[in-house]
Amino acid sequence: MTIAALNATFAALADPTRRAILARLTQGDASVQELAEPFDMSLPAISKHLKVLERAGLVSRGRDAQRRPCRIEAAPLEEATEWMERYRRFWEGSFDRLDDYLKEMRRKKEKTHARRK
Amino acid sequence: MTIAALNATFAALADPTRRAILARLTQGDASVQELAEPFDMSLPAISKHLKVLERAGLVSRGRDAQRRPCRIEAAPLEEATEWMERYRRFWEGSFDRLDDYLKEMRRKKEKTHARRK
Repeated sequence: MTIAALNATFAALADPTRRAILARLTQGDASVQELAEPFDMSLPAISKHLKVLERAGLVSRGRDAQRRPCRIEAAPLEEATEWMERYRRFWEGSFDRLDDYLKEMRRKKEKTHARRK
Repeated sequence: MTIAALNATFAALADPTRRAILARLTQGDASVQELAEPFDMSLPAISKHLKVLERAGLVSRGRDAQRRPCRIEAAPLEEATEWMERYRRFWEGSFDRLDDYLKEMRRKKEKTHARRK
């Protein structure tokens, strides 16, 4: 995934309406009209959000000229998640280090107790 | 995680310099000067990016008045990844369905062959 593609994916995800549109599309393809319904937003407002999602490659449009159904595209989400996963290793690492530290503290404490007996 | 926090996290991740700063901070805490070095950027430019990361809760600043070292905070990244994970289930689900379909096709084909013999 290019740097620009990753920028576009995260920028697209930074809006709650766009995240909700993606969530809706995981249930199945939908027309702009169908997408607009639950949001109480105008069609042009929804179309604007869809354009951002399309440019980021997160949504594609069908060929049916009337409906042009929107479909979620998983690949950019998958690649953005892979980027995040590197940090998962980091924060899980921090917890592991904390865990090691606590175990070490316990070991030292037990040693001190054993010496006192 | 609130909607606003998730917006701020994704918006912060939409910039390659900010992603690179986070990557650097997984190696250990760093001052603004240390962070600016590899980027060939002015201190005010880096400080501006750091403010975005701080507002999103992705970076905190130490108390040492001289250095005010920057530290990465894993919690918002973890929560944003959890949001992405819901979509992992979706796209892995699509692959599973494709896999089931291919198995079904193979089964049918084998049945037809068996009948011919």
